[in-house]
Amino acid sequence: MKFATLGDMGARDGQGKVALVDPVAGTAWPVDAILGERVAGMVDLIERYGDLKARIRPTGDAIDLSSARIEAPIPRPARNIMCVGKNYFDHAHEFSRSGFDSSSKDKSDAIPEVPIIFTKVPESVIADGDDIRYPEGVSDSIDYEAELAIIIGEGGRGITKERALDHVWGYTIINDVTARDVQGRHKQWFLGKSFDTFCPMGPWIVTADEVDAASLGVRCWVNDELRQDANTSDLIFDIPTLIETISAGITLRPGDVIATGTPAGVGIGFNPPRYLKRGDRVTIEIDGIGRLTNTLR
Amino acid sequence: MKFATLGDMGARDGQGKVALVDPVAGTAWPVDAILGERVAGMVDLIERYGDLKARIRPTGDAIDLSSARIEAPIPRPARNIMCVGKNYFDHAHEFSRSGFDSSSKDKSDAIPEVPIIFTKVPESVIADGDDIRYPEGVSDSIDYEAELAIIIGEGGRGITKERALDHVWGYTIINDVTARDVQGRHKQWFLGKSFDTFCPMGPWIVTADEVDAASLGVRCWVNDELRQDANTSDLIFDIPTLIETISAGITLRPGDVIATGTPAGVGIGFNPPRYLKRGDRVTIEIDGIGRLTNTLR
Repeated sequence: MKFATLGDMGARDGQGKVALVDPVAGTAWPVDAILGERVAGMVDLIERYGDLKARIRPTGDAIDLSSARIEAPIPRPARNIMCVGKNYFDHAHEFSRSGFDSSSKDKSDAIPEVPIIFTKVPESVIADGDDIRYPEGVSDSIDYEAELAIIIGEGGRGITKERALDHVWGYTIINDVTARDVQGRHKQWFLGKSFDTFCPMGPWIVTADEVDAASLGVRCWVNDELRQDANTSDLIFDIPTLIETISAGITLRPGDVIATGTPAGVGIGFNPPRYLKRGDRVTIEIDGIGRLTNTLR
Repeated sequence: MKFATLGDMGARDGQGKVALVDPVAGTAWPVDAILGERVAGMVDLIERYGDLKARIRPTGDAIDLSSARIEAPIPRPARNIMCVGKNYFDHAHEFSRSGFDSSSKDKSDAIPEVPIIFTKVPESVIADGDDIRYPEGVSDSIDYEAELAIIIGEGGRGITKERALDHVWGYTIINDVTARDVQGRHKQWFLGKSFDTFCPMGPWIVTADEVDAASLGVRCWVNDELRQDANTSDLIFDIPTLIETISAGITLRPGDVIATGTPAGVGIGFNPPRYLKRGDRVTIEIDGIGRLTNTLR
């Protein structure tokens, strides 16, 4: 099933209204109405999903999806989004060559031996269709990164690879927008990854039972030019390895978001680099999920 | 004034009860009772402080501080704690020499040219007196880092150095507990800094008007041995510079926590390194604030 968060800015908790969506038919069914009880937001749905899922089906009054504002599926995560760096071979090499990679000393260590994890602030999240803000005067080297993102269901610490997929509730798309100069200069990547609006997410979450995340095409266009075209089967560290690694010391929680890394074809992969300009439209498509489009303004 | 969060696990929002405290007299006055209105937690107090502060004074029924459980002042920050790496000269050199510093290639670049910022998850926060959990089987190189932490009051983006101190609500103490092997191996420091219980914080927040944060003694003992003894006047990047740097692209928010970095004398500064063992007690003292003590179990 696919679940979106629809705009409901009047809601007291600011978490929006969660709806079951059928993007092909262009229809949404608010989960509250399906169940006849309050669901306080996507994370509330995730936490109660085991009890609720048998009762969730397209029923009752439907909303025309084209008339609704679709928010990011988790508009305001409860803690920073965790992101994986250099998790596709070709991208690890292009990034190392670019000169912005503070994690490698030379091309001999371009490929990481263990996952590299950094974070983006929750408030950097924006929805499909929202504008990415050009950080005038702060950075002029803005880049895109198409990524499959994991949404954690059941939390836990010390989750083994073998059990890891039991903890995945679903998947969505993230554009891990990056200020390359800030990323390189400050050594740790948090700052250059966390500028306001630098985390487009959505348009919805697909539950884990609907896709084989180990083999999904990931494509990214800047305007109409295809820049990234890869498959999650090429991840250096697969999803079970990422979950095992992060949860070894950190208790994962329902609604945690883990962006799995980007393939080759980002702006700094070109020589000279092709940074985003104002007005550029970035579209990311992942098989079985959908499309996420945002414009730099 | 000093404000603590007292245990109030029955409170619906889990944010505890905020109290004005006098540690010398051993007395606390719940802010709710002083004001005759609900204050939902430390961040609520911070957001409304401009309106409330004239009415806050030690009045009404006092609580014996020794009989209360003192929580971390912000028990569950709304997003990851931001931390500064290598922000004292002597520590930058000792860390670079240790071999765990993925941010420097050799001793020529041990001193950063701009602030290095990384994060710790909010759920790593524990209170004064709580145990730090030994991450059995995950890391055997656990280290302490005594740090002055800034609590942001009024938020904003693009805050200049000249205006930065207007955005500081107060200060507290953080122990930036670190798994050195994980920090070094994973290049980005987030993972090795974010293990459960790795962020002792407290015991309270001192409002900015009470201390000159540019000149505070910072000391740290392991058991009874003095290991760190420095002054915030030796920060490489001062508090206004840190706020200007972070807020250039990221909108700061009330209740944000920024740990300003640790001085020389951490475990990896010794040869061979002196990692914490089970049962070791770490005590941090900062002038004008207080003492934060936690034991590794």
